[in-house]
Amino acid sequence: MKVVIAPDSFKGSLSAFDAALAIETGIKKVRPEARTVLVPVADGGEGTMESLVAATRGRKVQVTVTGPLNTPVDAAYGILGDNVTCVIEMASASGLYLVPAEKRNPLVTTTYGTGELIRQALDDGCRRFILGIGGSATNDGGIGMLQALGMKLLDAEGHQVGFGGGELERIEVIDDSGFDPRIREAEFLIASDVQNPLIGPDGASHVFGPQKGATAEMAERLDQSLRAWADLVKSKTGIRLHQRAGAGAAGGIGGAFQAFFPSSMRRGIDIVIEYTQLDKHLQDADLVLTGEGQIDFQTASGKTPMGVAQVAQKRGIPVFVLAGSIGRGIDTLYQYGIHSIHSILNAPMSLQEAMERAPELLTQTAEQVFRTYLARQNHN
Amino acid sequence: MKVVIAPDSFKGSLSAFDAALAIETGIKKVRPEARTVLVPVADGGEGTMESLVAATRGRKVQVTVTGPLNTPVDAAYGILGDNVTCVIEMASASGLYLVPAEKRNPLVTTTYGTGELIRQALDDGCRRFILGIGGSATNDGGIGMLQALGMKLLDAEGHQVGFGGGELERIEVIDDSGFDPRIREAEFLIASDVQNPLIGPDGASHVFGPQKGATAEMAERLDQSLRAWADLVKSKTGIRLHQRAGAGAAGGIGGAFQAFFPSSMRRGIDIVIEYTQLDKHLQDADLVLTGEGQIDFQTASGKTPMGVAQVAQKRGIPVFVLAGSIGRGIDTLYQYGIHSIHSILNAPMSLQEAMERAPELLTQTAEQVFRTYLARQNHN
Repeated sequence: MKVVIAPDSFKGSLSAFDAALAIETGIKKVRPEARTVLVPVADGGEGTMESLVAATRGRKVQVTVTGPLNTPVDAAYGILGDNVTCVIEMASASGLYLVPAEKRNPLVTTTYGTGELIRQALDDGCRRFILGIGGSATNDGGIGMLQALGMKLLDAEGHQVGFGGGELERIEVIDDSGFDPRIREAEFLIASDVQNPLIGPDGASHVFGPQKGATAEMAERLDQSLRAWADLVKSKTGIRLHQRAGAGAAGGIGGAFQAFFPSSMRRGIDIVIEYTQLDKHLQDADLVLTGEGQIDFQTASGKTPMGVAQVAQKRGIPVFVLAGSIGRGIDTLYQYGIHSIHSILNAPMSLQEAMERAPELLTQTAEQVFRTYLARQNHN
Repeated sequence: MKVVIAPDSFKGSLSAFDAALAIETGIKKVRPEARTVLVPVADGGEGTMESLVAATRGRKVQVTVTGPLNTPVDAAYGILGDNVTCVIEMASASGLYLVPAEKRNPLVTTTYGTGELIRQALDDGCRRFILGIGGSATNDGGIGMLQALGMKLLDAEGHQVGFGGGELERIEVIDDSGFDPRIREAEFLIASDVQNPLIGPDGASHVFGPQKGATAEMAERLDQSLRAWADLVKSKTGIRLHQRAGAGAAGGIGGAFQAFFPSSMRRGIDIVIEYTQLDKHLQDADLVLTGEGQIDFQTASGKTPMGVAQVAQKRGIPVFVLAGSIGRGIDTLYQYGIHSIHSILNAPMSLQEAMERAPELLTQTAEQVFRTYLARQNHN
């Protein structure tokens, strides 16, 4: 009996790894001799770096970088067990969670810190990058990151422009003479589920600007600025970012990768699944347990249980989901290889109690689900 | 695929029958062609009559009888599908729930109404009785019931004594000349889990008196009265009730059945299981779903899921329990044939919300448990 345990984190209560441990405890209570393989999985969002580091027995590196508001922040990136692949969550250096609500203003927030993380990892010898770009506070088209890596973005008077989306409109010249040459030798895998173009009504500024603090006027100004920036990039590189899918991800940093980095963009969950070697671990597995804090119809769009199920489905291995709460519309999930969905709640209780007791509840539910699975004796 | 659905009620939200229907809905969502057999089960306590009437397609009879406080109450009994077997819950006529807390006084509460129910059912042609005696308000040794059935219990002056445990001490003569002769032709199956003797420290008055409103002094007086009553019964019938197991059930009415009725006493759940023909329904079944509002270590002592599991275990059929809340100590239940225990809660919520949404939650959980059960493809 081989059981693969591949949960996401239970936000606010358990990391993906701790969730996997709690589930394993439940399995071992029933069958101490069962073979369990722990594959903590994240969907490219928060926790992705931690989960890949854990899965590959890599390490975490702490760095102080320039935060979105141009003040120092403590950030971190991961180096995977292969010592060559670096995992960066952009939010660690340039995330919205680093900016108090009243200070959110994409005219000033910068991606400079993300560039610093990349530079530091290049210094560490990393040449493969996995970049999760969810949760950013920025709409600067990635210019801060480019500057941190030696790109000169000059105004009409030949001076470097400053930080923030508000500076985009001042750029007249892209001078890549100082751009870090190691980038050309590296490869960048961008984890993103966002397919938006750089500009226009579906572009970065209008769709994601407001949640980062942009008023309607600011969003329009940012959209115009990104258009000018895209024109400039086109004349410099020949690449038209304007309507390109994914260029609008994370305030346009998606476009910066497309224009200036050897890069490709994939769904976060697919990258994570590849790097955790989930499919290999599924060989000879009898069942898979996955889970996350909340499951509902949105899970179908690239969340962890769905990604796990899609891989397991190809091998015909049943997948059981353990969730803190079960929302509406789960009937749509069965077609993707999810066999059943169980809440870890075992009595009426508050959200706070459920979060505090999550390890114990997860263990108990994993045990019960495994017992139910094992009960079937013959087929009919 | 044959699925037997045998839940108890979910107290405060679903009758056993409605719980069975909710579970069936979940099963049919997964396998519309599955054969489902609904066997609502009660453990001899509240709901037993309803559940046996439903299981045998019998009928309910409404009667106005004398309540525990000698005022009229609306009571009911059931006549099973065989038209001969009557099911009476003593609490319907003489229950503690009929007496407001401030009026609880076993010196005055009477079992007369229970006797009236029996008489009415005898008039209806019933000759087999199943009597659930849980939840009584009384400690009168069953004398009220005996009087309702024609027994004369006379004081020193040859007058009938009145109602309540306080009258026991006045009885000098038991005159059975008017005792309903149909009782001798009938059989009485007493559903009770109580093994207490009639008198002494483990007897009816000291153990159950206080919860019926007896002070310590009242309990002692009632114990002495029951002793005198037992002495009288001994000289009349030759039967010594004093230390007899079960004679102390329901304020001593257990003893009255033992002395004056062709009767036997069994665990409620065992009687219910026999009359619902659960074992017959389990033939060729693949799995059993049972459940109740709360499950914990106490479930081991004769509650519905345990009784169901014990029957299913003999046939090697897996049993899954669905519960509103799961308490402590459930690990002790697996040895009795329970395979797994799942809460119907699917998110943090209050008890009230859980009770209001019980049908929907039960359906969803039954579906998920069934899906998990079905997922197993091969054995290892």
